[in-house]
Amino acid sequence: MAPFPTPTDIRSATELGSGPPTAAALVVGDELLSGKVREANVEVLARALRELGVLMRRVVIVMDDVNVIAEEVRSLSCGHDWLFTSGGIGPTHDDLTIEGAARAFGVPVVTSSVLADRLRKHYGSECTEAHLRMALVPSGAALESVSDAHWPAIRLNRTWLLPGVPEAFRMKIPAIMARVRLATPACPFVSHAVHVRLDEGRLKPMIDSVVSRFRDVAIGSYPRWVEDGALTKLTFDGLDETRVIEARDALVDVLPPGEIDAVE
Amino acid sequence: MAPFPTPTDIRSATELGSGPPTAAALVVGDELLSGKVREANVEVLARALRELGVLMRRVVIVMDDVNVIAEEVRSLSCGHDWLFTSGGIGPTHDDLTIEGAARAFGVPVVTSSVLADRLRKHYGSECTEAHLRMALVPSGAALESVSDAHWPAIRLNRTWLLPGVPEAFRMKIPAIMARVRLATPACPFVSHAVHVRLDEGRLKPMIDSVVSRFRDVAIGSYPRWVEDGALTKLTFDGLDETRVIEARDALVDVLPPGEIDAVE
Repeated sequence: MAPFPTPTDIRSATELGSGPPTAAALVVGDELLSGKVREANVEVLARALRELGVLMRRVVIVMDDVNVIAEEVRSLSCGHDWLFTSGGIGPTHDDLTIEGAARAFGVPVVTSSVLADRLRKHYGSECTEAHLRMALVPSGAALESVSDAHWPAIRLNRTWLLPGVPEAFRMKIPAIMARVRLATPACPFVSHAVHVRLDEGRLKPMIDSVVSRFRDVAIGSYPRWVEDGALTKLTFDGLDETRVIEARDALVDVLPPGEIDAVE
Repeated sequence: MAPFPTPTDIRSATELGSGPPTAAALVVGDELLSGKVREANVEVLARALRELGVLMRRVVIVMDDVNVIAEEVRSLSCGHDWLFTSGGIGPTHDDLTIEGAARAFGVPVVTSSVLADRLRKHYGSECTEAHLRMALVPSGAALESVSDAHWPAIRLNRTWLLPGVPEAFRMKIPAIMARVRLATPACPFVSHAVHVRLDEGRLKPMIDSVVSRFRDVAIGSYPRWVEDGALTKLTFDGLDETRVIEARDALVDVLPPGEIDAVE
């Protein structure tokens, strides 16, 4: 594996290309792939990124395998402005994300003196070597938190190494929001929707006529099964609110009167 | 993209290597990556595969992009015994999985006369060209169902193209179970667990002593935050029940008496 540039500070997201900044998530854990635990962090992250105007393009869930983690961190961090990992950062043998990320970036794993001090304070005389493993970080990592009361998140340049336990993951969102806002011009996505009492087969020609005129608006069609027939939710998403509303209204104009359930 | 061998019949999973047969899932949908909809099919699939003794090794969630879908189908179907896609198989412009899978395998998209007949019967005089798009399949695909009452699942050799709507996805599980059982020797995973009132930092040396002796058992450690302190769930998974139970009992033997909450 060729060495990756040593992480320094965050570059402006817009340096990496035009369009909205992009993100990927790498979720680590055998328990998710075996169906023993239901994944709960991707949705929370997705909503936060959406609010920031960051486009999440890919999520990969892998097993607790340090080589696989290293390969994915390397590949996903190169292809996206931000990478967020979830899981595998505790002290036990199946916690391999810190080591995997360090390998991906070609840096050693070191003890953060800040984290080690906090662990020693917290556990007092009961602090073990295993507890102190929670102070291990890839060399060059920054610690991010919005308050000293919280355990900080680990960030290595544009890659965040986050805990898998959902309660702990959620607590890192404010620090992510604060830091990403510093690097990214705030430009949240705008969403509108129309709910229609028609199935997709009937709707398709009407949708197509709007899709062809609004290439800059992402138009989605989501059927639902309801007791008294079809119900389809049509969504309109983009960065330019005027265009998003124009696309929504263009569809409303071509729908048969009386079949519209709601316009959002 | 080099052409992929034309799909014929299913080879025995064990032809592809030793160990349990493996699977991957490709989940398609902008709505999942934007946090508008919570993914609900991976867990259902994971549980079914576990019951079949199939190891799900990777899940990838991507946007509605035909090139990305084609590339992922190609890559995931090569690296795993089974691939299951979820989403993007309806009639609208954002339904691109049939086309993506066809490109991945180098086959054309064709109309299934069986599915077209069923659609014409169902919709009668209201059947549109758009409805008939739901009869499109990659050439060479098989239709799988356990009963004529159900809409069949589309299978192209070892790749299943499944709907994203959770109710529809769930209805395909019996057909998957039946077909995978035909190709795979039934050898379900065995799981046991110990719940301990100790944190991972305290537990680590005890866990490590068992991990080193039971390399054939996957041992997982999952902390939970509870009001009156730490609670850790230790899981023991494998194909050989005797070894799994031996590993669990070996851990129970080294735990401090009185700290065990439950043994499963």
